[in-house]
Amino acid sequence: MNGSSVHKTATKEFRNQWIDFIYQLQDDICKALEVVDGKAKFSADEWQRAEGKGGGGLTKVIQNGNTFEKGGVNTSVVYGHVTSQMMKVLNIDNNKRPSSWFAAGISSVIHPQNPFVPTVHFNYRMFELYDIDGMLIDRWFGGGTDLTPFYLFEDDAHHFHFTLKNACDKSDAALYPLFKKECDDYFVNTHRDNERRGIGGIFYDHKRADEHQDIHLLQGLAINCGYAFMDAYIPIVEKRKNTVFIQQHKHWQEIRRGRYVEFNLIHDRGTIFGLKSGGRTESILMSLPATVRFEYNYQPQPGSEEDKLWQVCLHPREWL
Amino acid sequence: MNGSSVHKTATKEFRNQWIDFIYQLQDDICKALEVVDGKAKFSADEWQRAEGKGGGGLTKVIQNGNTFEKGGVNTSVVYGHVTSQMMKVLNIDNNKRPSSWFAAGISSVIHPQNPFVPTVHFNYRMFELYDIDGMLIDRWFGGGTDLTPFYLFEDDAHHFHFTLKNACDKSDAALYPLFKKECDDYFVNTHRDNERRGIGGIFYDHKRADEHQDIHLLQGLAINCGYAFMDAYIPIVEKRKNTVFIQQHKHWQEIRRGRYVEFNLIHDRGTIFGLKSGGRTESILMSLPATVRFEYNYQPQPGSEEDKLWQVCLHPREWL
Repeated sequence: MNGSSVHKTATKEFRNQWIDFIYQLQDDICKALEVVDGKAKFSADEWQRAEGKGGGGLTKVIQNGNTFEKGGVNTSVVYGHVTSQMMKVLNIDNNKRPSSWFAAGISSVIHPQNPFVPTVHFNYRMFELYDIDGMLIDRWFGGGTDLTPFYLFEDDAHHFHFTLKNACDKSDAALYPLFKKECDDYFVNTHRDNERRGIGGIFYDHKRADEHQDIHLLQGLAINCGYAFMDAYIPIVEKRKNTVFIQQHKHWQEIRRGRYVEFNLIHDRGTIFGLKSGGRTESILMSLPATVRFEYNYQPQPGSEEDKLWQVCLHPREWL
Repeated sequence: MNGSSVHKTATKEFRNQWIDFIYQLQDDICKALEVVDGKAKFSADEWQRAEGKGGGGLTKVIQNGNTFEKGGVNTSVVYGHVTSQMMKVLNIDNNKRPSSWFAAGISSVIHPQNPFVPTVHFNYRMFELYDIDGMLIDRWFGGGTDLTPFYLFEDDAHHFHFTLKNACDKSDAALYPLFKKECDDYFVNTHRDNERRGIGGIFYDHKRADEHQDIHLLQGLAINCGYAFMDAYIPIVEKRKNTVFIQQHKHWQEIRRGRYVEFNLIHDRGTIFGLKSGGRTESILMSLPATVRFEYNYQPQPGSEEDKLWQVCLHPREWL
């Protein structure tokens, strides 16, 4: 094999490892969540992109469970020619003469029934660019896992962040503090005095190999954080899922879900780009909660449990 | 008085007529809707823009009524210096050397309890630009009234469009067909195969005086269409508000309200511009329905009453 073939083979192997990982994680998480739920099962929709566009995805959705009201765990593996719209949106350097691209990722949002169980979201993705000869010219990773409780349990917040910190630390102990801050800075309803969607977690984007982290370390980071989802989230669900709740708690959950909808539809780059660039709408909007409430100027009673949660959304805290 | 003073006095008079109109219409509509509701009253919030920004508004909201689940009728009268962000967003011609601006309008969204009563929206606004000497250099009107039923009653659709056509015809018989089409082209969820938000009505923007319509005719158009709201909508409410409904109808109403939320937060220029430019969030988002539902890949049974409504959203019709 010549140098170019060796290079292409290595790229293909790396890509396949990543694809294997996202499918495996999707499968593992769906099984684990079904066990927790005890009633509902994930249904699967395999979809292909429209003619002339390469790739597709596997959308797995759970609805009306004992524990989970609505949730999805989606994978997609897509590729195509670089278009001028894409160059602009992704801010791609034209000097690199990119010709084609590849993207694969896993994303999930889980909305529980019980208002004492938090909503959770995670997403891990890899993006590659190739020149006209199919040689890799750029590659980056993005991802994150964040929690949206309706009532604040400090030990849950600590457990969630601690588990994600441990996952990050396996790659580099410098990462968690950076990713924690990026998360707090990203999931923000700027139109509501910078109220956060929840109590955060980790978030990163456009992570490329550099002198600090080689590409295998970045892939390992995503794999470790992806698998940490189950350790971070499921114990909280088990602990809270049988807590007795009344209409007042459900009402507050639906109000907070309204903020979730606002963030996803007004601010979330992935959602807006996906919807406006012809992504599969039902897979993208699986992130929206089943029942939601919008009331004019609703504010919790100062000092109430609802207010306590609201205050940590307005003023993000360190949990570790 | 010199020519410049005469000009400024005329501009001020025109502006004041418009302000008088929006306050009067707000008052008249709130009173009329309270009579229809029979239980809930509008509450009023007067607000001022943040320090250094001129003007404010009057937000009137009705909630938890017999007939109306949530609704608002808002007026705002705002002004300020032209900023570079504004020049860009509003596509203002720099050659005109604009220095300050003025905008005043009325907008309303009413979400009824009963799924056989449609949701309705209207908005009429005027925008002016001045040079450094305070001389008017540009002025335009925008507006529209549109209906979002959950079940299709062809006679209601006909009545609604017919009433708006009559209001337009008082100014110019050429307008209704143009505005009807603009409405069908504007309230579109492009991410859902161009599904419309409802069965339309009229919509127009950036209407300036020209050889066909002088500025008084354009002001008259907005006034006639604004007042036609009550004739267009209230008879439909009276006719349908006591129709017996079951959970299935409410479910479908909440699903369709989800599409309403999607349109307003993803596509509506006024909502997005308002939220991103520091408008009063609670007044802007009063447009969102109280209870909303998002289900994965929900589709009505072909041939059902729900499907009949869905089909006219996918394929807009002529109603007259």
